[in-house]
Amino acid sequence: MREDFFTLRTVLWDEGKVRMIDQTLLPQRLVYREFGRWEEVADAIRRMVVRGAPAIGVAAAMGVALAAQGSRESTRDGLLKDMERAASGLRSTRPTAVNLFWGIDRVMAAARTARGGTDRLVRATVSTAVEMAEEDVETNRRLGKVGEPLIDDGDVVMTQCNAGALATVGYGTALGVVRAARDAGKCVKVIVNETRPALQGARLTAFELVRDGFHCTLISDTAVGHMMSKGRVDKVIVGADRITKDGYVFNKIGTYQVAVLANRHGIPFYPAAPHSTFDLERTHDRVVIEERAAEEVFQVRGKRVAPKGIPVANPAFDETPPELVTAIVSDRGLIGRPIGENVAAVIGTP
Amino acid sequence: MREDFFTLRTVLWDEGKVRMIDQTLLPQRLVYREFGRWEEVADAIRRMVVRGAPAIGVAAAMGVALAAQGSRESTRDGLLKDMERAASGLRSTRPTAVNLFWGIDRVMAAARTARGGTDRLVRATVSTAVEMAEEDVETNRRLGKVGEPLIDDGDVVMTQCNAGALATVGYGTALGVVRAARDAGKCVKVIVNETRPALQGARLTAFELVRDGFHCTLISDTAVGHMMSKGRVDKVIVGADRITKDGYVFNKIGTYQVAVLANRHGIPFYPAAPHSTFDLERTHDRVVIEERAAEEVFQVRGKRVAPKGIPVANPAFDETPPELVTAIVSDRGLIGRPIGENVAAVIGTP
Repeated sequence: MREDFFTLRTVLWDEGKVRMIDQTLLPQRLVYREFGRWEEVADAIRRMVVRGAPAIGVAAAMGVALAAQGSRESTRDGLLKDMERAASGLRSTRPTAVNLFWGIDRVMAAARTARGGTDRLVRATVSTAVEMAEEDVETNRRLGKVGEPLIDDGDVVMTQCNAGALATVGYGTALGVVRAARDAGKCVKVIVNETRPALQGARLTAFELVRDGFHCTLISDTAVGHMMSKGRVDKVIVGADRITKDGYVFNKIGTYQVAVLANRHGIPFYPAAPHSTFDLERTHDRVVIEERAAEEVFQVRGKRVAPKGIPVANPAFDETPPELVTAIVSDRGLIGRPIGENVAAVIGTP
Repeated sequence: MREDFFTLRTVLWDEGKVRMIDQTLLPQRLVYREFGRWEEVADAIRRMVVRGAPAIGVAAAMGVALAAQGSRESTRDGLLKDMERAASGLRSTRPTAVNLFWGIDRVMAAARTARGGTDRLVRATVSTAVEMAEEDVETNRRLGKVGEPLIDDGDVVMTQCNAGALATVGYGTALGVVRAARDAGKCVKVIVNETRPALQGARLTAFELVRDGFHCTLISDTAVGHMMSKGRVDKVIVGADRITKDGYVFNKIGTYQVAVLANRHGIPFYPAAPHSTFDLERTHDRVVIEERAAEEVFQVRGKRVAPKGIPVANPAFDETPPELVTAIVSDRGLIGRPIGENVAAVIGTP
């Protein structure tokens, strides 16, 4: 098997610390940073040192594990209170991706059900967080296999943002499907939408695809419709930050308009997400879309691109309604139309 | 009357030289540069020191006037040959905006029909170029009055790229309509799409609207669909680089997808352009869309945002089919549906 990107891990637990690639430095520098306190992990999530729904789910779980490990409380109750405080701080970092809440809930549940004293409780928390990281890669590989048949030999696949190895612990969701198609012997080319404002397409997706030897082409976000109208796109595959029980796909800003354009041009549009991205408790109207800082828009990599004093709107995510979705690729199977009705059937009850 | 942006001139003839705002330095610095040779003007057009279809039409005409003025030929034929050489060099700078060819053709025709010796011919060329600059502002004011009734008090207007004072000699086309609506006492707010790769929205439209005291909001190109889906856009007004006789609107890359999204949300979509932007000799399939340098995409204001070695597609324009156009605003009147059939009727024969 060729040496490819998934051999790099975005988030890992290393001798009692969390190690993560600092994604703000890519594509120029590939640097791992070490985090010993949950507050540092929360800050890293907020500043998008680590981003991507599955990756922040695991990072947050490891953040809770750091809190457990660092607690000086000698009783279960005291320890659980310390962990709850960390959980609450980590939950408040970013509101949209549901994996964040899923990851935190899962380690907290493991802690609560652990038998024995505080030592056992800490060990259960850490081992659950580590297990989640391992599972994430396996989940993505399974998801990749589910999605692989959707890709034909010679396809040009467009993707928005980064739903690759860097958005997960490794391998990727949308790019996991692309990797699985290549592993199945198909030739796949990728059109990478740069994805302003934070440029995850240009910086991260381009980085991991170039590193992995894929044939890819970078475009401005403004060129999406033009490329489709000229017949240069066969499929669209994107990730997701939350998929609600009624089949709405919340993902990086710009995804919705890519879906509208794909629909106009008869191009299949496939979100790809692990089961942890599904929110079976909520309909789309109950999801908060994060509004991020104006600087992301009026500056690019520290360079000001707009006049002083200009007001900015900077929604970080948008929602794509199920009628624009051809099918959703998940590790638990393909979710076909009608999407809203099939989500719960494929993913299961919460 | 309030002192507003149209008192600044983007392109002007000043004592035998061409003076132009260096738009590559905006929004940080407002600097005029002086050009004494046509080759310098051609270079300025190519590098987008001056851009915007009407502005480059006038700049190119003035470039030919510089060639006429600088010629050492003592015969009409020799002089006209020098001018033809300049005209040909200027024509080759950018292929899509038709105003460039229109501007050059017009000064060349003035030269050819001028009576008398070379002095008279030079004078006719210069005075035609100067006249074109004056006319441009008047044309835009007329166009603004035609479009003004389309704007309701309290409207939020979205615009792509810069079709303002900086895209013309002064006042603007799309933004001319917005200015005319304000002059008519209406409250108008503007959503400015940043318009990657060259960021004319963030850099230029935002600059002139802030300077003029307009209420405006800057967004990433990825947020267009989201803003529309949340009901935050009432109208879209854009400029044009070429409108063919079959009603296709060639404009800055990204315009087509804004039109598709406006259509989906039932938002009126109005291109605004002077008669010099109409190409009554061609249908849309005969227009060349300029492909610009990869650096524009993989760098932003000199900062690299993508990994080395990434291939790039960078089409500078796209085409919007007439079925997505609500009406076209021109200085010769409003062109309603069916657009393709009404273009020639309103604009006249070539």
